[in-house]
Amino acid sequence: MTILLSVTGFDPSRWWEALHLAAPDRRIVVDPAAATGEPIDYAVVWKQPPGLLATLPNLKAIFSLGAGVDHILADRELPDVPVVRIVADDLKDRMSEYVVWRVLDHFRRGRAYRQQQAQKIWHERMQPAAKDVTVGIMGLGVLGIDAATKLGVLGFKLTGWSRSAKRVEGVETFAGTAGLAPFLGASDIVVVLLPLTSETRGIIGADLLSKLKRETPLGGPVLINAGRGALQDEVAILAALDDERLMEASLDVFTVEPLPAESRLWSHPKVFVTPHAAALSDPDSLAPIIMRQIAAHERGEPLENVADRTAGY
Amino acid sequence: MTILLSVTGFDPSRWWEALHLAAPDRRIVVDPAAATGEPIDYAVVWKQPPGLLATLPNLKAIFSLGAGVDHILADRELPDVPVVRIVADDLKDRMSEYVVWRVLDHFRRGRAYRQQQAQKIWHERMQPAAKDVTVGIMGLGVLGIDAATKLGVLGFKLTGWSRSAKRVEGVETFAGTAGLAPFLGASDIVVVLLPLTSETRGIIGADLLSKLKRETPLGGPVLINAGRGALQDEVAILAALDDERLMEASLDVFTVEPLPAESRLWSHPKVFVTPHAAALSDPDSLAPIIMRQIAAHERGEPLENVADRTAGY
Repeated sequence: MTILLSVTGFDPSRWWEALHLAAPDRRIVVDPAAATGEPIDYAVVWKQPPGLLATLPNLKAIFSLGAGVDHILADRELPDVPVVRIVADDLKDRMSEYVVWRVLDHFRRGRAYRQQQAQKIWHERMQPAAKDVTVGIMGLGVLGIDAATKLGVLGFKLTGWSRSAKRVEGVETFAGTAGLAPFLGASDIVVVLLPLTSETRGIIGADLLSKLKRETPLGGPVLINAGRGALQDEVAILAALDDERLMEASLDVFTVEPLPAESRLWSHPKVFVTPHAAALSDPDSLAPIIMRQIAAHERGEPLENVADRTAGY
Repeated sequence: MTILLSVTGFDPSRWWEALHLAAPDRRIVVDPAAATGEPIDYAVVWKQPPGLLATLPNLKAIFSLGAGVDHILADRELPDVPVVRIVADDLKDRMSEYVVWRVLDHFRRGRAYRQQQAQKIWHERMQPAAKDVTVGIMGLGVLGIDAATKLGVLGFKLTGWSRSAKRVEGVETFAGTAGLAPFLGASDIVVVLLPLTSETRGIIGADLLSKLKRETPLGGPVLINAGRGALQDEVAILAALDDERLMEASLDVFTVEPLPAESRLWSHPKVFVTPHAAALSDPDSLAPIIMRQIAAHERGEPLENVADRTAGY
């Protein structure tokens, strides 16, 4: 039994080591040709080369190296085997850290205070109370609910939006196309944790941005995107920042990654850029989860967190 | 209509200025004799001289400058008028926001990512998990315990130090002079929320800084002071930053406030300066609340947050 590790965009060696460490008896190859006749039963992938997985007749399951599976489902020749998302406390905790960090930095006026410090200006800024500010979470999966819970502990009011109706304690929820405008109208800081699907692609565009609140306790609305870059229309975001419909933004993901040097997002004073690092998949934490799932599957146990190909996540 | 501002233990001038700024049409005196015949309707006090308020026949309400009213109720000749507290939950929540914000900004490498953005560098930073980082809280009063609770929700390990031994759930506690070095040796990020007393004055000095951990999961130790400026020796802090015994610092309070323009803290790249704004604890923030209460009372509206004299708070 051999496992294929197929990634593009980064060096797979840390993942190879972590997977190997988690189950030293397994054979793990990064090139199917290296399997030399041994069947490849499982694939652990990040943006695998399109068509590659279709060449593996014995493939039983495909594991994503992250929470999202859009990078796998984009393969038009994807074999009809289960595609497994990673659901891990480590990933969830890191994402919530990022969300709470960015919400607090906008809410507590980090940008203004950094500017003041650079100018040696001692001036206290007006500061609303958390209970007077509503954070709206787009995407109420494991990550969205965890972020909402942690923001709730800090006293923020919470709204949430998802494709299908959901109930989340302490969160005023909205759903579907009809729920989007009322959700936006009720949210001061919008946090996007949506999966990338055919329905969500480009959702953070001119139309959505035009429905953000004009006035908030912070002065204007704030956008935080830690979902996927293809959810956002960056031209529309820059236009909204420039004409002050959007007060500030924290973006961890971009339509093209790495973010090209010529993008105005890099130098826009109202934008905070991180390099798709909100919830780094830590091989040491996640590899054991994948290897345990593979072992369980071999014992005949069902796979957990299998993506719904129709929904796209 | 005249307002008496009566404090002992500190110079009332900052409070006088703030109250005056909040309602310039009001007459505010610090000595009842200065009222020259005009009746004194309201008193804004901190540890008023016993018996003083009993000499004011027109007094309608007494406002505390803090959350507690014990310093007012201790007056055995206190007239029978409402005694008004400043609500403390708001103060506590804001302080915890500041602490969580600053911990996350250091922990999630805000400074490094802002520098990278300025240089258009797309580079993921190594990021420890919260469970592998210990935040040490100096001062385990209402504020320290609340901050610890909220940091615990994010998964950080917690230590605490206080003058006398305390038990706080989920926090490894240390106490007294003997407990300081082991506390510092167990903490990666040190958050100071101590009251200023003769014992704590200058406590964040060369000796304490020399006992910080040399290596932490973040690379080096971090200091956050939101207690009082007189707790810290700024020359020692700058020296520790310069020779890399201290990795970064967030300082909200300073030995001289406003922080003088010549202080190197303003421009030190490893220091984040806020203008004593962690929580609304200063006259500029609280005076308008008091003056609004007075105006409302004059319009015949009820006073909020009136202390229960029997309960004593």
